[in-house]
Amino acid sequence: MPDTIYLINPNTTLAVTQGIDRACEPLRMAGGPQIECVTLAEGPAAIETERDVDAVAAPLVRLVAELERRAAALVIACFSDPGLHAARGATKKPVLGIMESGLLAALTLGQRFGVIAVSTAMIPRHRRVIGAMGMSDRFAGVRALGMNRVELTDESRTLHRMIEVAKQLCDEDGADTLVMGCAGMAQYRERIERAAGVPVVEPTQAAVAMAIGRVRVGW
Amino acid sequence: MPDTIYLINPNTTLAVTQGIDRACEPLRMAGGPQIECVTLAEGPAAIETERDVDAVAAPLVRLVAELERRAAALVIACFSDPGLHAARGATKKPVLGIMESGLLAALTLGQRFGVIAVSTAMIPRHRRVIGAMGMSDRFAGVRALGMNRVELTDESRTLHRMIEVAKQLCDEDGADTLVMGCAGMAQYRERIERAAGVPVVEPTQAAVAMAIGRVRVGW
Amino acid sequence: MPDTIYLINPNTTLAVTQGIDRACEPLRMAGGPQIECVTLAEGPAAIETERDVDAVAAPLVRLVAELERRAAALVIACFSDPGLHAARGATKKPVLGIMESGLLAALTLGQRFGVIAVSTAMIPRHRRVIGAMGMSDRFAGVRALGMNRVELTDESRTLHRMIEVAKQLCDEDGADTLVMGCAGMAQYRERIERAAGVPVVEPTQAAVAMAIGRVRVGW
Amino acid sequence: MPDTIYLINPNTTLAVTQGIDRACEPLRMAGGPQIECVTLAEGPAAIETERDVDAVAAPLVRLVAELERRAAALVIACFSDPGLHAARGATKKPVLGIMESGLLAALTLGQRFGVIAVSTAMIPRHRRVIGAMGMSDRFAGVRALGMNRVELTDESRTLHRMIEVAKQLCDEDGADTLVMGCAGMAQYRERIERAAGVPVVEPTQAAVAMAIGRVRVGW
Amino acid sequence: MPDTIYLINPNTTLAVTQGIDRACEPLRMAGGPQIECVTLAEGPAAIETERDVDAVAAPLVRLVAELERRAAALVIACFSDPGLHAARGATKKPVLGIMESGLLAALTLGQRFGVIAVSTAMIPRHRRVIGAMGMSDRFAGVRALGMNRVELTDESRTLHRMIEVAKQLCDEDGADTLVMGCAGMAQYRERIERAAGVPVVEPTQAAVAMAIGRVRVGW
Amino acid sequence: MPDTIYLINPNTTLAVTQGIDRACEPLRMAGGPQIECVTLAEGPAAIETERDVDAVAAPLVRLVAELERRAAALVIACFSDPGLHAARGATKKPVLGIMESGLLAALTLGQRFGVIAVSTAMIPRHRRVIGAMGMSDRFAGVRALGMNRVELTDESRTLHRMIEVAKQLCDEDGADTLVMGCAGMAQYRERIERAAGVPVVEPTQAAVAMAIGRVRVGW
Repeated sequence: MPDTIYLINPNTTLAVTQGIDRACEPLRMAGGPQIECVTLAEGPAAIETERDVDAVAAPLVRLVAELERRAAALVIACFSDPGLHAARGATKKPVLGIMESGLLAALTLGQRFGVIAVSTAMIPRHRRVIGAMGMSDRFAGVRALGMNRVELTDESRTLHRMIEVAKQLCDEDGADTLVMGCAGMAQYRERIERAAGVPVVEPTQAAVAMAIGRVRVGW
Repeated sequence: MPDTIYLINPNTTLAVTQGIDRACEPLRMAGGPQIECVTLAEGPAAIETERDVDAVAAPLVRLVAELERRAAALVIACFSDPGLHAARGATKKPVLGIMESGLLAALTLGQRFGVIAVSTAMIPRHRRVIGAMGMSDRFAGVRALGMNRVELTDESRTLHRMIEVAKQLCDEDGADTLVMGCAGMAQYRERIERAAGVPVVEPTQAAVAMAIGRVRVGW
Repeated sequence: MPDTIYLINPNTTLAVTQGIDRACEPLRMAGGPQIECVTLAEGPAAIETERDVDAVAAPLVRLVAELERRAAALVIACFSDPGLHAARGATKKPVLGIMESGLLAALTLGQRFGVIAVSTAMIPRHRRVIGAMGMSDRFAGVRALGMNRVELTDESRTLHRMIEVAKQLCDEDGADTLVMGCAGMAQYRERIERAAGVPVVEPTQAAVAMAIGRVRVGW
Repeated sequence: MPDTIYLINPNTTLAVTQGIDRACEPLRMAGGPQIECVTLAEGPAAIETERDVDAVAAPLVRLVAELERRAAALVIACFSDPGLHAARGATKKPVLGIMESGLLAALTLGQRFGVIAVSTAMIPRHRRVIGAMGMSDRFAGVRALGMNRVELTDESRTLHRMIEVAKQLCDEDGADTLVMGCAGMAQYRERIERAAGVPVVEPTQAAVAMAIGRVRVGW
Repeated sequence: MPDTIYLINPNTTLAVTQGIDRACEPLRMAGGPQIECVTLAEGPAAIETERDVDAVAAPLVRLVAELERRAAALVIACFSDPGLHAARGATKKPVLGIMESGLLAALTLGQRFGVIAVSTAMIPRHRRVIGAMGMSDRFAGVRALGMNRVELTDESRTLHRMIEVAKQLCDEDGADTLVMGCAGMAQYRERIERAAGVPVVEPTQAAVAMAIGRVRVGW
Repeated sequence: MPDTIYLINPNTTLAVTQGIDRACEPLRMAGGPQIECVTLAEGPAAIETERDVDAVAAPLVRLVAELERRAAALVIACFSDPGLHAARGATKKPVLGIMESGLLAALTLGQRFGVIAVSTAMIPRHRRVIGAMGMSDRFAGVRALGMNRVELTDESRTLHRMIEVAKQLCDEDGADTLVMGCAGMAQYRERIERAAGVPVVEPTQAAVAMAIGRVRVGW
């Protein structure tokens, strides 16, 4: 019986895969499932548009199918959850998406969640997914950092902007809990939480926790 | 200025492209836009699963980008609207999807629409798209024919099953208008309408009508 | 077989009927339906209150019934869609309302629509209609020009105020597409769109496009 | 200070006005407001279609305006609430509609209400009003008696059919409380309640109770 | 047959019970039900947290059961409606809650209601109750006074803050009607209404009006 | 740092606590948190009515506060989630409820969930909680076993009835995933899943999995 949860980073930026891996660290427990992070070879450097999401879905689902035999569960570690439902159709193993899991975790931490998106171009898609999830009544709003991949490598600027957006979501949109709309940035979570004064969900951790549960209970 | 509306059939079954073309016939008017139907070379024979939808999105969006210069507007002629939002990001020309347009047309014909799906496997996706469209309050239900591509070539059996499903949507789910969840089957529309006693939307025609309007008014 | 789409302006201001007629111009095609605009004799000078809407419904439905034989389809060319559903019961010909059609068109152009209303007094009714249409999840907000009939004859002031309201709907309410909540003002559409930077729907044109489709496909 | 609540029956059938009057009987208290029932001269014999609703709105609102000076509050005593919002704009006195009040009362008696409509033709309108009220999540379903005015004079047949519809709403649609979708039929309420085993709201009584409250507290 | 409506103040602050009693004054009519206000002995001095709501529910329901024989109806006179549904299960007499009744009354006075809450800590619960009532589409927002019991004894400061919050709910959240989220403060209602320019509901009065109706009609 | 997740069974039936404990077994990992199940001394033998839920909330929250220092996280192991939100206010440690967690888990397993309730009397409350959670659009239906505590000790009868209800939720209500609306019955899960042919969530396991995640990531 395979005992490894695979997280797939569908973009080819290794620093993101490494960030995802670090986010998993506290969820590695003796006696618990192995957690391994892989990078999709065919992905773009970043997933910033609807077209990127669609482009990456097919190779990602192929990778899911390839990993199936070795996997106890799989996590799609990109906030747009590309190919999530197709992947579920491609394997009998549990497949979790970090957007879905992150939003669900937020529902246990507050009454109205806000989303800190990275790319402005993705906002309509985020809204549609939240609509498809039937969660509009709990949704306070989404705002984007509006930073590109290069800008995001500047940690202090990124943190500053994340906190700015977090506060707008709380003060202007009425969010009482926040979800980070990105993978591989868990290092900012605690500081955003402290600055905004509301719980902040790191979605990869939320997904891995659900995956561990599914692997252990066997459904 | 290009004056052609391109309909893209994302599956490779030519009979479907031909059915789509016939459905457009009444919408060809002297002085109006040309309407041309093309088949996506990279598509599968039929789009029956979530994975098919995801697989076809990338090549379809590429074709949209290629056709852009020659197109006045584009219609994605598959009821799952694969790549619809990515396509909109890939061109400044109007892009309509037949699912979206078909459901919108239904809202002018009744208070609660039902959807006659082809594949059972697509039902959860249809529900998600309707949720993403924010239309759950007008949605009576979706039921699938549960027929495969080969079975669908038997016209009398297909019609019989469509009518059966149409009546269940009305009688058991409370639909007062129906949307055909497929492209290229316009020939059945009128007979289903007569049998079910409620308006029936052929979604390709709904999308082309919207496209003509967009081309003519220029927005 | 009649081949004329009648648009009924339910107020008696001829300048409005003329504005509606001009809006239809691009939708007149050599081989397409005739498009004719008529003015309801019994209407008020403007429809500015719920009472105006109710008062005009009965004579408007009578006119629909009178025009039925000559009409291929009918369009109620007032943003409140007075008598829309009664008119549908009074004829077997397609009847479209510009509010309904305008909002549906907006759903294909963005994820959250805002409405530029004319009269503040109509805002609660607009909200109710949007609720009745089951579209609250896609609705960003409605704001009124708050101008009366006389003020609206000042074109530059009207345009200025429309742009102001358009920007508020985008910046404060989060609209990413707008619907003009009035008939006969198509001349402002493009300038609002340029100023606000989001798609702007002229609802009469949206309704006529749908009507052409319905006339041509015969359902 | 006027101290009379006027109920307006917008159809000309005096038996209905008398039924409405009897329904008010228990709400007449020595120290409470007077309650008077009037018949709209211009109404049809029955309000059975959307067109009837629209036709009656204008004269009804005129009557509201006429009664204003003598009225402490007004109740529109027809389940379609014709002209309700226009009437509210035409007077500063409280105006209640029996559909609105009846549905609101139902929300205090169960979790999902069903509506016993009279005319099948009115079902789409009832759904739209419930949508406009934002109550779709509490709405179990609506079913019509499908009886005309003449048939409704047969009391035992009417009762029998009402009970039949009531049971379908509970057993098939999951209603746990019911609203009678008609005025002037309070005499059946208790028997339907006993037969269906769930609370049944008589909407005229619900509206008058709200009107008494509004008159007494002065807001 | 008992003819008394009992209002239960679940906190032990007698000034609140007295305020509730004064709010009932206009609803006492010759020939109408008696209205009596009682204080729950086991309650806290104020109900300011979710824990207070839960703590008070059990003794409150016991008191409802004790009063049953003497009561024609019962009203839970605390805006959180503690124990409302349990109380309904504990007696066959009508039980109304002031939050529920207040919100329902607001639906007849405007299209989008705002809530003036007392305690910030209660806002998530208020949102949940509104969600449970299925009223999110009519809900403009909730804002809290953020004042404690001692501060609330300063009448002029309380009024000033209530007006401030009322205006924010209208101007920033789009409320066109307001509900006072507290019991025993009816004396402020009219002044808030004048200052905010929209109807303001005093929820105890709304609940008692409904209770009178239920007592008189006998269902 | 405490490393124990406490599950509180708020009823006094030890067999239920033992069933809960067995359900946790697969979630105990060598390097993971301890998981301990405790029984609330003040609880009733079973929680079958709204009144039971309200009665148990206060002592349960007291127990949460008592356990706080020793607990890494707490789980309320009763499907009605009594006192959930008050408990969250009473401790800074994560508090999960099995209803909330079970429904959230179901959202990752299908598009429309059904709930197998135990007591018919609880159905309206379950509907309210689902409304408060903003999940009505994903909710297919709830049906109760309608069995009392004694009947539930008959395992084969219980299983038979659970399967019967599960099938009705799928076939008649359109559920494509199910949530067991009870604690301590994990032993039936797999057999229901096999019989119904859709995923079945055991809510205690779902809650403990979420709790483990929260404990390990420290938020």
